[in-house]
Amino acid sequence: MKVSKFGGSSVASAEQLVKVGAIINDDSKRKFIVVSAPGKRFKGDEKITDLLIQLGESYISNQPFDNVLDKILTRFSGIINELNISNSVLDDINQTIQSILSKQITDERKMDALKSVGEDSSAKILSQYLKSLNLNASYLNPKDAGIIVSNEPGRAQILPQSFEKLYALRERNEILVIPGFFGYTEDEQLVTFSRGGSDITGSIVAAGVKADLYENFTDVDSVYSVNPQIVQDPIEITSLTYREMRELSYAGFSVFHDEALIPAFKENIPVCIKNTNNPTSLGTMIVASKKHDKKCVVGIASAAGFCSLYVSKYLMNREVGFGRKLLQILEDEDISFEHAPSGIDDMSVIIRESQLTAEKENSILKRVKEELNADMVTFHRNLAMIMIVGEGIMSTIGIAQKATTAITEADVNIEMINQGSSEVSIMFGIRAEGINRAIQSLYTAFFE
Amino acid sequence: MKVSKFGGSSVASAEQLVKVGAIINDDSKRKFIVVSAPGKRFKGDEKITDLLIQLGESYISNQPFDNVLDKILTRFSGIINELNISNSVLDDINQTIQSILSKQITDERKMDALKSVGEDSSAKILSQYLKSLNLNASYLNPKDAGIIVSNEPGRAQILPQSFEKLYALRERNEILVIPGFFGYTEDEQLVTFSRGGSDITGSIVAAGVKADLYENFTDVDSVYSVNPQIVQDPIEITSLTYREMRELSYAGFSVFHDEALIPAFKENIPVCIKNTNNPTSLGTMIVASKKHDKKCVVGIASAAGFCSLYVSKYLMNREVGFGRKLLQILEDEDISFEHAPSGIDDMSVIIRESQLTAEKENSILKRVKEELNADMVTFHRNLAMIMIVGEGIMSTIGIAQKATTAITEADVNIEMINQGSSEVSIMFGIRAEGINRAIQSLYTAFFE
Repeated sequence: MKVSKFGGSSVASAEQLVKVGAIINDDSKRKFIVVSAPGKRFKGDEKITDLLIQLGESYISNQPFDNVLDKILTRFSGIINELNISNSVLDDINQTIQSILSKQITDERKMDALKSVGEDSSAKILSQYLKSLNLNASYLNPKDAGIIVSNEPGRAQILPQSFEKLYALRERNEILVIPGFFGYTEDEQLVTFSRGGSDITGSIVAAGVKADLYENFTDVDSVYSVNPQIVQDPIEITSLTYREMRELSYAGFSVFHDEALIPAFKENIPVCIKNTNNPTSLGTMIVASKKHDKKCVVGIASAAGFCSLYVSKYLMNREVGFGRKLLQILEDEDISFEHAPSGIDDMSVIIRESQLTAEKENSILKRVKEELNADMVTFHRNLAMIMIVGEGIMSTIGIAQKATTAITEADVNIEMINQGSSEVSIMFGIRAEGINRAIQSLYTAFFE
Repeated sequence: MKVSKFGGSSVASAEQLVKVGAIINDDSKRKFIVVSAPGKRFKGDEKITDLLIQLGESYISNQPFDNVLDKILTRFSGIINELNISNSVLDDINQTIQSILSKQITDERKMDALKSVGEDSSAKILSQYLKSLNLNASYLNPKDAGIIVSNEPGRAQILPQSFEKLYALRERNEILVIPGFFGYTEDEQLVTFSRGGSDITGSIVAAGVKADLYENFTDVDSVYSVNPQIVQDPIEITSLTYREMRELSYAGFSVFHDEALIPAFKENIPVCIKNTNNPTSLGTMIVASKKHDKKCVVGIASAAGFCSLYVSKYLMNREVGFGRKLLQILEDEDISFEHAPSGIDDMSVIIRESQLTAEKENSILKRVKEELNADMVTFHRNLAMIMIVGEGIMSTIGIAQKATTAITEADVNIEMINQGSSEVSIMFGIRAEGINRAIQSLYTAFFE
């Protein structure tokens, strides 16, 4: 039994939905289908979810909204006509929108409910289309599926009782098409997950029904070993562990919504990233553990936009609590840190630059100087992080050597290095301007 | 104006004190002399300070102490006779001991006062001997010198008003011989520094009188670039910065008492490590900053006896406060950490194995699992740390590459790496059994 989730580009048009239908028709194990809202069909196109947000904002601020509502319905109408399914689906979608707009609920709830219409409509359309292919399929609302969530609009968390309810769905002898991205609270209020949350729904359903496989259909053949914008036609990754995926997704790899993996991860369900446009390609498998390749590095991730808080104080390492107090100051400013490499009397804390407003920067500098009596406190901006990722790194001699050699040969200075015991990655910090050179050289060293 | 401090081996015998006298006589700028207690003259010999501690323990527990008192006085008597100076010095030393023993003070204070007798006696003997060489020299008690300290027996801290008093000593037109290791509280109680604290006294005096140079006389020609027990006849370091010294002293370099550098460091006074037995050798200069050598690595330090606490938790890096809470748990167990390299979802905290009792280990494992909800928590024992140290490291391309290549060529796996921005060292964690191989290979790479 498989759970198959189709992303925004896979349900963006009738043409794409025909591919989705064929994929479902092709494998009778694909019993649970989770769908996103229609995404962009071409560069410059609008996503349905963005139009729905526009609609909500106009309505709430008493602006005219006919135009945007029309855009939304036209888009759905086009899909429905091309798929040659009953126009009653369009009426259903329109009624759903009208009833949300007129309902006496807070603005926040109204926005959340409107945002869910994209996924909900996709599911309604796809289930009708599957029926038209003579498949035994039904639309299943998350409420009826048993997706019960916490009452946090825009960032719902799944509640544990959901999984038992979902497990009962195994008994239904049909294809169930479930809209992603939202669930219902215990008192039946609609609440959405964080943006991109259709992956979360898919992972929750996969965990709940204890699927053999969670397929995640996107528009790429697989996860690449390195950013294709930096290296042309990089090697595709056939298989990687949850831990490797996580390290890669951290910096530059955005195939998968991070949090989405948790339910599947906990139930040990393998995940497969596949391409709706090329379904015979094997895709990338994400598993709990795998045999060591000869190649112990599976990927090289990179991202700019980091900075480092450098603190030095003579005899720092004698002070029990120094590191903790430093991290506390960052926490007080609501800043999470990525790494904290340290010398004897100095410590660098690496954080994402986007978190650091000028105000926070000043406050941190002041507090570190005054409260920790530091000899020197500065921020270094404009850094990039490179992660060399692979389960085999910790047990293979020579990985750090190969990596440092490659970076050095690219004439890039290594500002920071970070590798802990048992870890599946080595991190290098460099100045952002060297990132392409460094990555290209690393790719050559590890993959060519 | 120079402050010259002579360590335990330099004042261990009359023969050594003759060398000290010659050194002082040789340079009229050596106006402030600080001395340790007589140390070992040969392998298996006893240090005077250890005998004084024995004396105190016997006295306090009402055991006979004549034997050990006799040993102490015999040792001093031998020195005094050989130097051919007045026996009144011996009477003075004996009286000092007797008056401490009979004084109505707490046992803790009695021990502290007894422990100070070694340095005090060295200073009395040396000042008499300098007089006998027709030098204008006086013994100067720390109380009269103005060394005012906090009331913490065995770990006194200097109080800021001391420095002004010490500065006034510049007016005295004679050689002042000051015993190291102790000072007096504001209400005139004798209190000692932490063990090895004569270096502290020397540094305090150097800072107070704003000396041009603080000379630290030991029994080695210089600081070596690597542990001579691992590499034969290693290169001597001619000059290093405070920061480099500090990184080196962290792991395997014990030439200098760490804390001792602080007062000199704050006043920017250069420090010179010299050899009493070979005073014409240039020694090693420790300075605030220096021109970059072509060689940007000055030394390689190493030490075994480390372990690493490894914690992994899915989505760790999303949790603001995770690192801080982990360090808090260690702090609650009174454990200081050395480094904390981290991946995305895991963190290794490196601590000294000596701090980790079985009880603390269990408590930490339990708390991290329960309070932080970690997926995995383990201790890795038997690690060694290697520090590659040099001010130029951060700005020189290729250092990490050279180091990782050398370690790899020695067939040693790198378990951990740690280098932050602006730092003067790169740390490598390896399994302890590989340490000699790794260090020899690194030495060859950087120094041969």
